Amino acid sequence: MWPIDCIAHKRDGLVLPKEEIERFIDDYVHGRVADYQAAAWCMAVYLKGMTEEEIADLTLAMAHSGDMVDLSPLAGIPVDKHSTGGIADTTTLIVAPLVAAAGVPVAKMSGRGLGFTGGTIDKLEAIPGFRTTLTEDEFLHQVQNIGMAIMSQSADIAPADKLLYALRDATATVESLPLIASSIMSKKIAAGAKAIVLDVKYGEGAFMKTKEDARHLAHTMVRIGHLVGRPTHAVISSMEAPLGTAIGNSLEVDEAIEALSGKGGRRLMEVVLAIGSQMLILGGKAKDDADARHQLQELIDSRKGLAVFKAFVKAQGGSYTWIGKRPLTKAGQAYTPVCTDAGWISAVDGRGLGEIAMSMGAGRACKEDSIDPMVGIRLYKELGDPVRPGEPLFTLYGKSDADLPALAQQAADLITVTPQEPEHIDPVVSEIITE
Amino acid sequence: MWPIDCIAHKRDGLVLPKEEIERFIDDYVHGRVADYQAAAWCMAVYLKGMTEEEIADLTLAMAHSGDMVDLSPLAGIPVDKHSTGGIADTTTLIVAPLVAAAGVPVAKMSGRGLGFTGGTIDKLEAIPGFRTTLTEDEFLHQVQNIGMAIMSQSADIAPADKLLYALRDATATVESLPLIASSIMSKKIAAGAKAIVLDVKYGEGAFMKTKEDARHLAHTMVRIGHLVGRPTHAVISSMEAPLGTAIGNSLEVDEAIEALSGKGGRRLMEVVLAIGSQMLILGGKAKDDADARHQLQELIDSRKGLAVFKAFVKAQGGSYTWIGKRPLTKAGQAYTPVCTDAGWISAVDGRGLGEIAMSMGAGRACKEDSIDPMVGIRLYKELGDPVRPGEPLFTLYGKSDADLPALAQQAADLITVTPQEPEHIDPVVSEIITE
Repeated sequence: MWPIDCIAHKRDGLVLPKEEIERFIDDYVHGRVADYQAAAWCMAVYLKGMTEEEIADLTLAMAHSGDMVDLSPLAGIPVDKHSTGGIADTTTLIVAPLVAAAGVPVAKMSGRGLGFTGGTIDKLEAIPGFRTTLTEDEFLHQVQNIGMAIMSQSADIAPADKLLYALRDATATVESLPLIASSIMSKKIAAGAKAIVLDVKYGEGAFMKTKEDARHLAHTMVRIGHLVGRPTHAVISSMEAPLGTAIGNSLEVDEAIEALSGKGGRRLMEVVLAIGSQMLILGGKAKDDADARHQLQELIDSRKGLAVFKAFVKAQGGSYTWIGKRPLTKAGQAYTPVCTDAGWISAVDGRGLGEIAMSMGAGRACKEDSIDPMVGIRLYKELGDPVRPGEPLFTLYGKSDADLPALAQQAADLITVTPQEPEHIDPVVSEIITE
Repeated sequence: MWPIDCIAHKRDGLVLPKEEIERFIDDYVHGRVADYQAAAWCMAVYLKGMTEEEIADLTLAMAHSGDMVDLSPLAGIPVDKHSTGGIADTTTLIVAPLVAAAGVPVAKMSGRGLGFTGGTIDKLEAIPGFRTTLTEDEFLHQVQNIGMAIMSQSADIAPADKLLYALRDATATVESLPLIASSIMSKKIAAGAKAIVLDVKYGEGAFMKTKEDARHLAHTMVRIGHLVGRPTHAVISSMEAPLGTAIGNSLEVDEAIEALSGKGGRRLMEVVLAIGSQMLILGGKAKDDADARHQLQELIDSRKGLAVFKAFVKAQGGSYTWIGKRPLTKAGQAYTPVCTDAGWISAVDGRGLGEIAMSMGAGRACKEDSIDPMVGIRLYKELGDPVRPGEPLFTLYGKSDADLPALAQQAADLITVTPQEPEHIDPVVSEIITE
């Protein structure tokens, strides 16, 4: 008896045929499968798993549940990127203009953030006048003209994923590999990507807690990309410490501009070059990693990437004359504590710093919260850096009425300084998975 | 985060503490846990199981979710019985008056049936004038006066079970031992039972398909009864073939009266005596099985059980002067095919016969269907009986417009006659579990 049979089949660990998965998803989106039936099904998937073929079928069924963006009018191979989410991760705003400058079209739909800081759309909205809502025509023309566009994901991209995601959140079925993998891949496919580069993060500040879990998820998604005809590469990166040095929306825009000007932080640039390089390879613009990295470095040194960023901001109505001249961030007040000890930065609790930034207004605890684009934390030291007494550790940018000294005390407690240099720090990028 | 934590704990196979189970059930009944959350939880219970202690806690939480009937005004130990449901099972209408006649108070709440034939309440409503709705006062007084009463289960007995049962039915989580056991036991406890005798059936016509599954369920419920202070015994019985010889509501009342008059079928009486005997033992009216069976036989031979049945029908407003004189069943037409072969009855497809009876109007396919109390099938041969050509096999009692010869052909195909005596037939009652 439909749809109970489909729930029972997964409950019993059977492999669901493509038609059954398609029908279940279609019926769910159209209200013919109830939320409680989808919830029982998600728990069965969580506990019984899915084969790669089932995940690929689920991915396509969810992608086709709403609008499918058609990027075929674009010259070249549109390559999308996705990060599983981390702290101080402004990679998209750096990689997109670099890759576009190298000739790979970047037609990207992005989301708002829920959590410590904003998503890419929130960051861009820190720029006065910036429009994140474009028509499909505007979107495609802009990519054709200047190489890139980033717009807010429309409501009808993979509606099945939206429904399932909200349901999973309320039913303890979020951390299911098949459901995570199909959720990520379905949105990218619906948004028109012909190839995909994934940044799969692990660590305390990330969705996947261990490197092993991140590798497993990455392998699954690369394999699904293959099965659905969208070549997919994945970068495994560490979220043991914040990736960049900026936590907060305008601060992350400022950091992106610095990076495009050749002044990017060590850890951040490692990920930028790894992802950018894979995007050039999949976009057919570089023959190998060395070639790609060489091109990316040249585009930074020549400021050609920065020029694309500026044109992109201008094209989407944002104020742009300040770019490269002064920072975007203008907060009510700023506070910069100094280091009291000598030694090395041996740990940075990114999650804790993210929570402080969120409490200052940089992120949303729930969907209805509004973001203050100008608040946040700017770090001056990265994991593994030496420090001396009197050196500034970070600056807090807050609203006029915020108690910054108290928050600075909390933040300082999250940065561990030890007298010895730490013996082992995981490389930021530990692996690139291409098949 | 509540209630997601509770779902996650069961998902991860943890043992849920009593307080967590109580809170989950209470919140579900009061709308603070959504159906989709309860559905995910049921699937997690289905796949991860529960300890006996968890099942006992769940049973009590569900029992206490609504009214708790107080039978303490009654003298003696009220013993309830429950059958997991079978074909041609009119045991309650035979056992209750016998046990009441022996001095064990029977204050029973019963349900309507969904499936092949009616439940006990549907059978009693075949008697003109019979009232199945009593006030609590009427109910208790009747038991005090004549030893027994059977009423329709009120809406507020174990509402958590009602909600969960409907949800499980729609989410492929019906066949879960902890959920089945707690569902059965919670209703008996809420209805005031101080001790319980269970008839756990197995076979094609039963809920549990194998003897092993039936034994497992029975052991679990006996153990839970112990944990919640309600001594519980269980009879394991075969549903390989119909238990009695009547399928249909008035026909089953007629069969009960025959059994109380000393003319009960072989298979039916085996179960009646096993269950009645355990009820007398738990009710403190018999010292052992032999003593109990001796008493029951005496109450049949003396027609004292039949006298209680008559008083019971009269007390609840039913017409009773016909009892012991003529059958209740008066159908529009009857049809009796005869056997063409000589041999032995080696198989009777009770499920198939039940479906025919249901199609004739004896049972409900869905809750809204109405029942025709006077239609059904009366068998003249039991599993293992020898037959000769020309002997009647069964009579169909149908509405005036039913095509009885066609139905009789279908029914005859469900009764297998072989030239050799069948080598092995499972005993009807294979085991009695008391601890």
